[in-house]
Amino acid sequence: MSGKRVAIVGVTGAVGAEMLEVLAERDFPISDLKVLASARSKGKEVSFNGNKLPVEELTAQSFKGVELALFSAGGDRSKEFAPIAAAAGAVVVDNSSAFRMDPGTPLVVPEVNSEDIPGHNGIIANPNCSTIVMVVPLFPIYKLARIRRVVVATYQAVSGAGAQAILELENQTRAALEGKPLEKNVFCHPIAFNLFVHRDPKGEDGFVGEERKMIRETHKIFHDDSIAIHPTCIRVPVFRAHSESIYLELERPVELEEVREALDEAPGVRIVDNPEKRHYPMPIEASGGDDILVGHIRRDPFNEKALSIFVSGDQLRKGAALNAVQIAERL
Amino acid sequence: MSGKRVAIVGVTGAVGAEMLEVLAERDFPISDLKVLASARSKGKEVSFNGNKLPVEELTAQSFKGVELALFSAGGDRSKEFAPIAAAAGAVVVDNSSAFRMDPGTPLVVPEVNSEDIPGHNGIIANPNCSTIVMVVPLFPIYKLARIRRVVVATYQAVSGAGAQAILELENQTRAALEGKPLEKNVFCHPIAFNLFVHRDPKGEDGFVGEERKMIRETHKIFHDDSIAIHPTCIRVPVFRAHSESIYLELERPVELEEVREALDEAPGVRIVDNPEKRHYPMPIEASGGDDILVGHIRRDPFNEKALSIFVSGDQLRKGAALNAVQIAERL
Repeated sequence: MSGKRVAIVGVTGAVGAEMLEVLAERDFPISDLKVLASARSKGKEVSFNGNKLPVEELTAQSFKGVELALFSAGGDRSKEFAPIAAAAGAVVVDNSSAFRMDPGTPLVVPEVNSEDIPGHNGIIANPNCSTIVMVVPLFPIYKLARIRRVVVATYQAVSGAGAQAILELENQTRAALEGKPLEKNVFCHPIAFNLFVHRDPKGEDGFVGEERKMIRETHKIFHDDSIAIHPTCIRVPVFRAHSESIYLELERPVELEEVREALDEAPGVRIVDNPEKRHYPMPIEASGGDDILVGHIRRDPFNEKALSIFVSGDQLRKGAALNAVQIAERL
Repeated sequence: MSGKRVAIVGVTGAVGAEMLEVLAERDFPISDLKVLASARSKGKEVSFNGNKLPVEELTAQSFKGVELALFSAGGDRSKEFAPIAAAAGAVVVDNSSAFRMDPGTPLVVPEVNSEDIPGHNGIIANPNCSTIVMVVPLFPIYKLARIRRVVVATYQAVSGAGAQAILELENQTRAALEGKPLEKNVFCHPIAFNLFVHRDPKGEDGFVGEERKMIRETHKIFHDDSIAIHPTCIRVPVFRAHSESIYLELERPVELEEVREALDEAPGVRIVDNPEKRHYPMPIEASGGDDILVGHIRRDPFNEKALSIFVSGDQLRKGAALNAVQIAERL
């Protein structure tokens, strides 16, 4: 298999760094790798498979001859440069929110809707991390008995806000333990030993942007706008895996055994549910792994059609870089 | 007002220490204060209103002449000594789970069911912290339009597991930042930069003890077993305030304005809901305060009878010591 000419846009960010890791780990066939970032990062180097690569400045000329461009440099950069890359002949897998809800752009989680990939017009969107972590374990249940309602509360790691946010949690925590004042650069509230509603702006419906993403993106990925979804998105002092408490109302009653079997057979899902050892999904165990961990699987004693699960998934991997690379692998 | 002869059982624990604080702050009328703990703590001293008090060993003889005994020394101690204290003529306010579901023992959150206090037979139970933090803001909504269903996910501080757990979070976090191994004494999993399902044992229904408490205690406090409650209890790396994401289905549709008004007028509740400043309830702001903070109040666009709120409340104060003292004040 001959390699592809690949570009990574936003290579110095947390997701960009993870993309390099995932591409190397998975032996993604690459004949040429271009690593791009803003002018600020020019002159830096990144490592790929043991080789040092110089970071180049992202410009409109960056995409000549590029066949696959993985974007993770924020919505504004994607809006400007993804169409340029696509026009130059590359297929773009974009991790920003810029094109996710664009009707002409497939929004893909390979375990759920890889059949949407061929419909692309040069750009394929990677969903929001909280959405990915939720839909991977939801899909096998959806196939089993449809899903009518989802009530979800997230426990989101700081990595979702980028490399600077990871540093902010570390620095603030150190300061808090030493009784020093906490410096805030990324988040508007202290994150050390604290938690808060996601900082995305709130819409008229009262939902913050992150919550609206979980609703709309899930509808698009499942091709089903009828699912009632009520998310509450909370940032917690955890480094890099998102957890979610998910309550589900299905179309019909199901046995827990059926649900377990469906989850057990589903790609990208690993059941971690051992009451004796009090072992359920935890961010420290999801971190660095490819699977979404699922456990604490229970029926609702008050509603025979409802159940709940608790999940953890690496925000930087399956929530971002891994999902993007999995899309690229299916191209 | 002449003072009462008061005993605090478990005075060296996190809740015991907070009881001393709350009694002093609120000028609770005390003529004599006895501070009791296990033999292990004999010889220690505690401070109350600037005075040093010697910790006495808890024995069957400890309650002679005591009029009010505040217990927070775990279920086993309460089972053994609360009936002895009551037989000696004291009224016991018990913070353990020992008597909460006993039909003869009132289970009281003063803002909700202080009318149950006079029915006591010497013992009044203080509910579980997660229950208190939830029912205080739920009650005004319940009075407005009943509540048919509650789906709640908690973000529980380590203080709920006692003084040693607070230390464990601090020590583990320090070790994690220094790249050293994490020592586990209280929790069976690392809590630094992690989170996990509450360690209470799981029942056959799949719910852990803490979750069952939230269901049964809420039914008892509201005198309404018809409310469908589905809790997921998660421990997070926060020191002393519990947060909860609460989804509610009511008996009828309500305007958010009505809900806000009801919450605004409710005792023990403070609305913190400022989208412009992205300011919603946070544990660091709830800590040390008496009120349950409520915000991120939203309707469910998919169900006109449903809404959600996000709340934070100090686990050691309203979740334990303050609620116990408020019960005592109403005696």
